[in-house]
Amino acid sequence: MNDYDTGKSVEVCFSPALYTGFRNDDAIVVVVDILRATSAIITAFMNGVRRLIPVATLEEAREYKDKGYLVAAERDGIVRDFADFGNSPYNFRREAIENRDIVYSTTNGTHSIMIAKESYRVVIGGYLNLSALTDYIISENRNVIVLCAGWKNKFNIEDTLFAGALVEQVLQNQNFMTICDSTHAAIDLWNLARKDVLGYIEKAAQRQRLKKNQLDDVLEYCHTTDLTRCIPVLEEYYLTKLDVK
Amino acid sequence: MNDYDTGKSVEVCFSPALYTGFRNDDAIVVVVDILRATSAIITAFMNGVRRLIPVATLEEAREYKDKGYLVAAERDGIVRDFADFGNSPYNFRREAIENRDIVYSTTNGTHSIMIAKESYRVVIGGYLNLSALTDYIISENRNVIVLCAGWKNKFNIEDTLFAGALVEQVLQNQNFMTICDSTHAAIDLWNLARKDVLGYIEKAAQRQRLKKNQLDDVLEYCHTTDLTRCIPVLEEYYLTKLDVK
Repeated sequence: MNDYDTGKSVEVCFSPALYTGFRNDDAIVVVVDILRATSAIITAFMNGVRRLIPVATLEEAREYKDKGYLVAAERDGIVRDFADFGNSPYNFRREAIENRDIVYSTTNGTHSIMIAKESYRVVIGGYLNLSALTDYIISENRNVIVLCAGWKNKFNIEDTLFAGALVEQVLQNQNFMTICDSTHAAIDLWNLARKDVLGYIEKAAQRQRLKKNQLDDVLEYCHTTDLTRCIPVLEEYYLTKLDVK
Repeated sequence: MNDYDTGKSVEVCFSPALYTGFRNDDAIVVVVDILRATSAIITAFMNGVRRLIPVATLEEAREYKDKGYLVAAERDGIVRDFADFGNSPYNFRREAIENRDIVYSTTNGTHSIMIAKESYRVVIGGYLNLSALTDYIISENRNVIVLCAGWKNKFNIEDTLFAGALVEQVLQNQNFMTICDSTHAAIDLWNLARKDVLGYIEKAAQRQRLKKNQLDDVLEYCHTTDLTRCIPVLEEYYLTKLDVK
């Protein structure tokens, strides 16, 4: 018997730096980096990429490039000179990526994927696959941890809002419950913001960073709900498309 | 020139585990552990304690006890057998503590105080001294970081709400500004909760823990505003009363 003896637990972790306090190798971990890594990854699979290989360092990304791979690499929102493209979902057009393997390194997203790799399953979440993800979590009937990539280990608003949207849907199923304060906070912030999410995130630091770097053309796209049923999932060292109904 | 060139920065750090990302040795750090450590510490100074010595381990607390000090020590809300009292503010009655030195070890509060010790000043915050603290921060006109003690490095609701209450007041002064997502979130959660804070924190995990251990008699007291102008401040290795106007 534990705190969660009445159901499967739903938890939200606001930063990779807090993950050790949540770690549960029996849980599904949903990695979230709305602006823009996980939105881009979902787009890539929606457009037919075969495998996406997350790497932690730019050096690794460069080595893969030398071996002939397509490489997406950025830091702080800026594409690196050796890379084929950066972190914008618009880069992952079907004609550029279909049936290809891509190596991928980003500021915050890659790290979050790798720290969760010992869990039952690491999946990639965003508004683009919100309903598919909800259905998958409910069908698995397992504990779930939503891991927000944040910004350099800090809490961020845009990942938290999505976490709130997702866990609110999951918690409507009576097999799931929560006693996690950050889950409650994420739901309350989501309900404050949901009527005008793009207006609400005007105050988010990442929204201002993207604007400054003229990368804010993706805001509306990254907040579009249910464009796809694709759920990227980590297998060994790469992401692939989860086989779901 | 930096992100904060238009004013003194206001930031909220949701957990000691995130503090390295905020650390700024030129800032005032306000340590917050509403249920119950910082509420108890403020009460102790309000009732005339001379010095309060925070220690990290129970072993240290026990050594001080052997030397004849009054000792407050608990873990997970439970008083340790060798200690004179635990973490309830009600223990710190004037007749028990006036002009005495007390050694103090708690689950989360002590650790947060010690990790911030290199900053310009570490002060202790709670609803009990909210207005005094606001006035002090504004009069110092420095960057400020509100460090929530959280629960075992996790985000908690009750510390976040107080952080929101405090930074909202400070930001009414035009010398201060924020671009920190957790500050915006704390303010929004505070404004959701402020009309019925005790009702809102019903969902907080710590509120349930205190109830389970029959320690929830302090809830209303710990959310009482402006009982005192006392601001406990860290000097070398102990807390004392800050000299303010």
